[in-house]
Formats: sequence, structure tokens, C-alpha cells
Amino acid sequence: MTLDRSKLWSPAVSRLEPYVPGEQPQVANLIKLNTNESAFPPSPKVAQAITAAEINKLRLYPDPNSQLLRAAIAHYYKVDASQVFVGNGSDEVLAHAFFAFFQQALPLLYPDISYSFYPVYCDLYDIKAEQIPLREDFSLHLSDYQRPNGGIIFPNPNAPTAMGLPLSDIRELLNHNRDSVVLVDEAYVDFGGESAIALVNEFDNLLVVHTTSKSRALAGMRIGYAVGSAGLIDALTRVKNSFNSYPIDRLAELAGAASFADEDYFQWGRQQVMQARDYTVRELEQLGFTVLPSQANFVFARPNSKPAKTVFEALREKNILVRYFNKPKISEFLRISIGSQDNMTALVEAIQEIMQQ
Amino acid sequence: MTLDRSKLWSPAVSRLEPYVPGEQPQVANLIKLNTNESAFPPSPKVAQAITAAEINKLRLYPDPNSQLLRAAIAHYYKVDASQVFVGNGSDEVLAHAFFAFFQQALPLLYPDISYSFYPVYCDLYDIKAEQIPLREDFSLHLSDYQRPNGGIIFPNPNAPTAMGLPLSDIRELLNHNRDSVVLVDEAYVDFGGESAIALVNEFDNLLVVHTTSKSRALAGMRIGYAVGSAGLIDALTRVKNSFNSYPIDRLAELAGAASFADEDYFQWGRQQVMQARDYTVRELEQLGFTVLPSQANFVFARPNSKPAKTVFEALREKNILVRYFNKPKISEFLRISIGSQDNMTALVEAIQEIMQQ
Repeated sequence: MTLDRSKLWSPAVSRLEPYVPGEQPQVANLIKLNTNESAFPPSPKVAQAITAAEINKLRLYPDPNSQLLRAAIAHYYKVDASQVFVGNGSDEVLAHAFFAFFQQALPLLYPDISYSFYPVYCDLYDIKAEQIPLREDFSLHLSDYQRPNGGIIFPNPNAPTAMGLPLSDIRELLNHNRDSVVLVDEAYVDFGGESAIALVNEFDNLLVVHTTSKSRALAGMRIGYAVGSAGLIDALTRVKNSFNSYPIDRLAELAGAASFADEDYFQWGRQQVMQARDYTVRELEQLGFTVLPSQANFVFARPNSKPAKTVFEALREKNILVRYFNKPKISEFLRISIGSQDNMTALVEAIQEIMQQ
Repeated sequence: MTLDRSKLWSPAVSRLEPYVPGEQPQVANLIKLNTNESAFPPSPKVAQAITAAEINKLRLYPDPNSQLLRAAIAHYYKVDASQVFVGNGSDEVLAHAFFAFFQQALPLLYPDISYSFYPVYCDLYDIKAEQIPLREDFSLHLSDYQRPNGGIIFPNPNAPTAMGLPLSDIRELLNHNRDSVVLVDEAYVDFGGESAIALVNEFDNLLVVHTTSKSRALAGMRIGYAVGSAGLIDALTRVKNSFNSYPIDRLAELAGAASFADEDYFQWGRQQVMQARDYTVRELEQLGFTVLPSQANFVFARPNSKPAKTVFEALREKNILVRYFNKPKISEFLRISIGSQDNMTALVEAIQEIMQQ
């Protein structure tokens, strides 16, 4: 960017530090464990739903209210459709939520080690924020969030630590925090966590955000959703309808609804991930790694005898891609997505070789 | 909305007056001429591109930079891929452009009768704006826009009037307006207008926004794009990457690229629309309507012997849906999308009956 370029920009654009997603390299035979995607394809019902007839109907706009998809999600969680909002991936849902709830006089609170898109949204909408440090062992204590605030957001399980919180901790926070929105970002909750959706009818200031990108293997389709009180969903809908009437395309709506209609496949997929995760944790610990307790489809692990960056680069040489964050407090860790059992066996063998060198 | 609901909202949310898109009723045998959709399905190459193998790949994130699609668009318009931005429908592209360019000390200028999403974006991002009245005959004079401004936006052809501007008028404006962004919203340009994309290499402050929803029959797939200088595209990319890394899903990227690869079908489709439009204009004029000169896939027409609202409602009774805007200056007009020749014959017959009653 040169000064010449930015002279035509809104002043706000120059202050942005955009989010950088994990790499999507086009390399053959790459074992891709860097963006927490599913190792398995989506439910076969998804392909069945995307027929030639539906493709021809692409000439028509989608339903701006995504009623089919919202009804499927509402049915799944036993809530009313007025309690469900859908968006183009959970990132869009989060962006609208930051706009809708967190532009307040008091600061938004979120963990210092967390999803790195949160500070980007704060920059985008000029939201004041205060980062609450995790404890020494990377644990998140919600008692640290009982202070004046304009909103609270945290992932559960947290990212990139993978560590989860019990529902009782979240209930305790909500009992003490009634006047600002508490957003629980549950992108990874389906791999062993406890969802706060169980509490949405008790607390009208609770918003729970999910994605279909991980446990439903639909990262490529861009479907995120929020569940909360009708009042919060109303605010999100107002913001969405002031931005883009139709964020969910016709095929995405069909794909999402088909996924929620296939419970057996969903359960099978998450069991596969949890089994491969158990194997991975066991093997990494035997190789001398410290592995934080994971409730997610990834593990956060520190190779104690070599720098994390060295192991990251050596894995890349072997065509295995994991994620490395060159940031304070976590620069000695690797975030490793849980792929298929074959993927994880290959990873463990590659790490064995690397640690012996 | 009750006060109780909005107490948890950001104050900005209560001031929003969201955009209301045209209805998408689920009625069988409806002749739908209300949202300017294509009467024809997308190119057969679109269905060919969306294979079962691609659906299984939905487990993977899309390319956050949509390189395949941007390359296809760049090739089509003979510009560099760094001059192309893509988004989830042209509404999302416009929203990002309002954020990226129009948050300025001076007001944004746009026509008083125009796309009704513009004031909604201004509310969303708290952008000062000044509406420039169209002339008595609904014509747009760009000489009226030569005044201090923080940006200029207008559709060409304009909506809902359907009236187009020659490229020479746009060049003249750009010659006098170098210091703020001029955004030409060309959603309907493929039906007889002259695209300002021809000028993007001459004026680094020109951004041209298009959609695949009309002339490419992909309304249901949500693909819009902007063409301009690399500096403007850079700003849009910064905003997009601070909002949602992956607005174009994997199937949308394939569908869009397939559409741009089928020039014969594209040309056939727009010729069909222009022929059916000629027929419609001729017949409506014979029925005593005033029809504004149209370069779009719709006509804006005033039924001189009955109120527009009466005709709108009578058409609805006959299962034909057109668009009626109950707004100052245009409440005596109907906006009628150009469908297939069969659709337009049915419309003309229905109006004949209504006008005789």
C-alpha cells in the first residue's frame, strides 16, 4: 500500500489489520491439518439435495429469511425459528454480532489468547476492548470476567488452546452478568464440549454461535448460525438486512438443511474425530510433547525438545501442514487439526523422524 | 421491537431502517416479474461444474482469494486479476465499498430516485449523504454532481427507472471529479447499456460494480464483483478480510467461472430479454402506459388511466407479481421485470383485461 493508493480510502480502512486465515495451498498429496477442516466429506444427503433441477433454479433469488435452514436448525436444538440466525459462515455471524451488540461505552472483554478475528472486528467497528489474560496453564476463568463491560465473548472450547469450560461456569457468569451480551463461540463444541444452547431460554443476553464448517464438514459451503433470545436475533436480522439481504445462497440452504437431517452420519463423524484425537494425544505425549486437554477437532501441543517453528517447518518439508502462530505466549506450540486416522498415523511417524534428527 | 429487547443492542442498531427486498412468495404457477431475475436458467456449464466430487470437497474451505473466479472475470474484461474484487452478491460488494470509500467528511452524492439500499448503507456506517434530484422526466444529469463530495454513486442504467447514461457523460464527470471515488453500479448494464469498465485504466477513482444475478441468471448463487484500480480493490480486500475471509463458497466460485466461460449462452440470454422488452414496451404503450426508455431487464411504466397500485393489486389477483413502490414521485409507476416471451404475453393479456374493467 502506498500513500497514493490510500488517498481515496475512508480513513478507517488504513487502520485495519485484516485477519489472515490458514493457508490453502494447491499442493498434491498434502496432508492438510492446518485449518481444522473435517477429514470426511459432508453427509451423502448433501449431494442428494443439490440436484440439476435445483441448479437450474439458481436464476431465482434465495429466500432472504432462509426459513428452510432456520427451521431445520431450530428443530435440531428444540428452539423456535425466531431464536435462530444464519449467516455466510460463523465469521459473518460474528461480524454482525460485534456490530449489533458490542459498540458500547464500556469495553468488550475477551481472552488474550483466543480466536484472532476478535480484535479485527473491534478495529473494523471501532469497538473498545479489554483482553483478559488466560492463567499460566492456559485455562480460562470466567470469574475474571466479572467486571463492568459492554459485552463478553469467548470460544468454548477455546481456540487455539482446545480447552473447554463446563456449562456450570457459563451459568455462573450469566447469573452475574445480565446487562450485556455474552457470546459463546462454539465452533468446536461438537467434539466433546457442553453447549450453552441449553441456557438460551433462561438468559436473554446469551448468544451462542456455531458453524457447519467443522463437525458438519461444510467449510466450503459457508454456513454459520447463532441461537439466542428472539430479541438478540432481531438485532442480528436488522444488521444483516442493512448489509446484504441474501447471504445464504440456494445451494447452501439445501446443503445445510440436508446435513441437519442426517444425525447418524453426524454422530459417526464426530466419534471418528474423537477417536483419532485420543490416538494423537497419546502418541504426541509419548514423543515428549505437552498437549493441552482438547475438547476440539484439533490439539494444541508443545514439542519440548525442539522449537515449535522447527517442527512446523520440518513437517511442511514432509508435505504435512499444521498451524504455527508466531505470537507471544503461544510461539512454542503447534495447532494440529485432527484428520483421518491415516492422516494422524502419518503425522506421528513424521514427527518421530523429526524428533530423532 | 420493544424497549426491553433493544436494551442489549448497540445504540446504532435502533437507528437502522433495513432494506426490504422484493417478495419471494411460495405460490405455484406464479408469474414472477418483481425482482428482475432471469427468465432462463443459468448456463448448462454451471450444472456441469457442480459435480458430486466437488460437493464432497465442501469439507474444505474455499480459496479465500477466489482466484479462479477473479481470473475468469479479469480475462472476460481484459483487466488484471488485481483489478477485480468478488463478494456475496453485489449487495455485499456495495456494503464493503460504502465502508471502504464513503466514510468521509464531505457527503456522498446519489440520485433521489435510485437503488433503495444506498440510504440503508449510509445508516449502517453513519455516512453523510446528499440526494441529488432526478430531472422532471426522470433523467439523471451528471453535471448536477459537480460539487464538493466524499464520493458519488449511481446505477447505470438507473433503478427503478431503467434509464441509461452514455459513457461520454461518465467520462465527463470523471474528468471533473478526481479526488473521491465514483462508483457506477452496473447491475443492469448487460441489457443495452455502455459499461464504464472501459474507463477503469484511465481513472484510478472509478469503481464499477456488477452482479451475476441478472444477465447470468445466478441470483440464487450470490456472486457480485467490482472492477477498478488495484488501489481501490486493495481497500475492498482489506475490509472483506476484516469481516469474513471466505464470502464466496466453493460451489459459487465454480458456478461463476462456468458462466463466464459460456459466452454464447450469455449473448443468447440477453438477446432474448431485449426482444421480449421491445415487445413489452410496444404493447404497454398501446395500452396507454407511459414507459420510460429502458436499457435494463425491466421497464418502469405508468398506467395513465388507473392508479398503479390498483393495477399492481389486480395483477396479483391474476397470479402475476410486479413491483410497486409506495414512495414519493414514483408511486404512479410499476416496475415490471422482463421474463420469457410467454410471461410477457400473459402480462399484456392480463393488463388488457384489467384496463377494460
